[in-house]
Amino acid sequence: MNVAIDATSQDPSEAANSGPAGYIRLGLDRPLELDGGGTLSGFRLAYRTYGRLNADRSNAVLVCHALTGDQYVAEQHPVTGKAGWWDLMVGPGRPVDTDRFFVICSNVIGGCLGSEGPKETDDATGKPWALNFPVITIADMVRAQKMLIDHLGIAQLFCVIGGSMGGMQVLQWAVSYPDKVYCCLPIATAARHSAQNIAFHEVGRQAIMADPDWRLGDYLNQGTRPTKGLSVARMAAHITYLSEPALHRKFGRNLQDRKSITFGFDADFQVESYLRYQGISFVERFDANSYLYITRAMDYFDLAADHGGVLANAFRVAGPDGRPTGTPVKFCVISFSSDWLFPTSESRAVVHALNAVAANVSFVEVETDKGHDAFLLDVPEFYQVARGFIEGHAARRGIAAKVG
Amino acid sequence: MNVAIDATSQDPSEAANSGPAGYIRLGLDRPLELDGGGTLSGFRLAYRTYGRLNADRSNAVLVCHALTGDQYVAEQHPVTGKAGWWDLMVGPGRPVDTDRFFVICSNVIGGCLGSEGPKETDDATGKPWALNFPVITIADMVRAQKMLIDHLGIAQLFCVIGGSMGGMQVLQWAVSYPDKVYCCLPIATAARHSAQNIAFHEVGRQAIMADPDWRLGDYLNQGTRPTKGLSVARMAAHITYLSEPALHRKFGRNLQDRKSITFGFDADFQVESYLRYQGISFVERFDANSYLYITRAMDYFDLAADHGGVLANAFRVAGPDGRPTGTPVKFCVISFSSDWLFPTSESRAVVHALNAVAANVSFVEVETDKGHDAFLLDVPEFYQVARGFIEGHAARRGIAAKVG
Repeated sequence: MNVAIDATSQDPSEAANSGPAGYIRLGLDRPLELDGGGTLSGFRLAYRTYGRLNADRSNAVLVCHALTGDQYVAEQHPVTGKAGWWDLMVGPGRPVDTDRFFVICSNVIGGCLGSEGPKETDDATGKPWALNFPVITIADMVRAQKMLIDHLGIAQLFCVIGGSMGGMQVLQWAVSYPDKVYCCLPIATAARHSAQNIAFHEVGRQAIMADPDWRLGDYLNQGTRPTKGLSVARMAAHITYLSEPALHRKFGRNLQDRKSITFGFDADFQVESYLRYQGISFVERFDANSYLYITRAMDYFDLAADHGGVLANAFRVAGPDGRPTGTPVKFCVISFSSDWLFPTSESRAVVHALNAVAANVSFVEVETDKGHDAFLLDVPEFYQVARGFIEGHAARRGIAAKVG
Repeated sequence: MNVAIDATSQDPSEAANSGPAGYIRLGLDRPLELDGGGTLSGFRLAYRTYGRLNADRSNAVLVCHALTGDQYVAEQHPVTGKAGWWDLMVGPGRPVDTDRFFVICSNVIGGCLGSEGPKETDDATGKPWALNFPVITIADMVRAQKMLIDHLGIAQLFCVIGGSMGGMQVLQWAVSYPDKVYCCLPIATAARHSAQNIAFHEVGRQAIMADPDWRLGDYLNQGTRPTKGLSVARMAAHITYLSEPALHRKFGRNLQDRKSITFGFDADFQVESYLRYQGISFVERFDANSYLYITRAMDYFDLAADHGGVLANAFRVAGPDGRPTGTPVKFCVISFSSDWLFPTSESRAVVHALNAVAANVSFVEVETDKGHDAFLLDVPEFYQVARGFIEGHAARRGIAAKVG
């Protein structure tokens, strides 16, 4: 299934509809310049596509995945065998309708499902990159995606959509390439990582690095795997994805397979065995060094800092007369009332900045007790809002209801 | 300084004012019966006292410490050299005025500062208890404290006060020994540990148990110490003690000793090095197995479950006619508006249950952005509330303003 494509060997005009891809080599002609100063040339970008690009190439939707997500947005995951992680959002008849749109989702650089990252082989040494992989940023991820979009011959994306870290990429797309994005949906996200966000990520990283099997990052060369540390990191993070009411509703103080407490350190409570399962199953599909790199990219994310400390300036572009004007990108910002990791206040800050440049923005705080993970779960109002925004703009853009 | 006292060798009527104690052996005549089924006989209880017991023994205040606290409530800590952990609450002229009250604070059983716990030597084997120490509950801790109070010849405590896990002990005292407590202040606490509370504790325990130096709990016998795992546990817990606004105010995205990010995994952000310091300094003063035992005791705490699932029933006592009536203990329940670990809703549940039995209860939610740790910090309104409640009831109880 993982077909390798050399970007230089394919006619861009045929690249899009040549079938779902495995990975592509990008940056062969001109390397990807990284915020940290280095470059990546001939780097892998693993991606999947769904639906068909229409004749005027106006129906492309880029889906950006979250920290532990991947390119398998609407199909069975090759490792876990589970359904696509955003099956509720992307597919035939879904808000991102694959009968209407050409959907692209790529594994972020730094990731571990085929894109260039610490798990992949460094061609220069023939060994896994491990900690020799350069530290990357959200903007670097987006720059790599842009090279893919160029390769696919898409001059402008109709829509960029994503939640959490995916939402950070959405915002970065709108800021880096305002003329390449018609509309976008940043969901359950923020324009910067907060102190508390950084703190939780640092706990996860320390848990990984405390595992002696991490071997200073060199575990792949040394034949070990820091599964215990990565599992603890996942457990800590997983708590932050759920709201307290959701945990209470789901588990409360219910006991596991027993009528009474055991006065021991086994998992007495259901919430304990649930968390342990989250940790154990995660390490089967994720690379510990990727976890370090991607959490770091999120920590570094701060759109305002890159624009003189004023978030609104991130959304200004040069107008026809050369003077700055508001971004032409149309926004639908969505937050969830019980999300304490990326609370509504962070979305509101984005909306205020967009208002300050008179951008076209709608904003919805969806009432739910499901916490941050709500963007992946069955929250009908959320999908209704997304569908309404996407269909409205698709009609304005003149995108047919079915690809001809 | 750590003077050992054998409870059977001392006249109870002289025990109280014989000077600040080191530890005492209790349960020699009659062992401490544990909720888990076992017993402890001749167990150590380390404690400190401040002030003097008055002639009618009516001015005793028991301070209960939190998860990582100890008996050094109002004096220099012997390990860290820092000031007492509740210097703002306890001392001459403080709300718990040591010129007026006889203050007792004991290290909980299961702890690691001299009381019987996994770090201490099991007399039966001559080796550290480690995981052979019985799993204990909050009620067990309180039962041990009750033996100390009996030894000190105190028929009724004027007041029992504590925050967080200390507040759980306060509630347990009022429920287990309603005739032995005149008034009490459960602060930033709950009548049960929530699913989210349990989840965070489970992450900490898994971090410790993932450390190979933990050696299945036998590290003291094997000459190792699971410092990395314990440090990660502390870091994760520490985030929950602070509010997001407090973290933001204190650190924001400020960088550590540098003008710009380093594109690496060192502590770039101040909040990272702060957390790392919290982890590293904690392992110097705390025992990993104690952390397992005490977090477990908190997880098991559920006052309502022990009373047919109805919290109000926990606060019913037999009246003069034998029929149940409300507790005679007077309550001042205090919560903090930004405490998300033990939110105000948990305190409100306690107050509702007390109201249901027509108990004498006042309730204050103190406005602060300092989070759960507010009960240890300089929050003037909090100390004013505590002072008002304590002074009012001390006057009603006829306790002189200074010990005669």
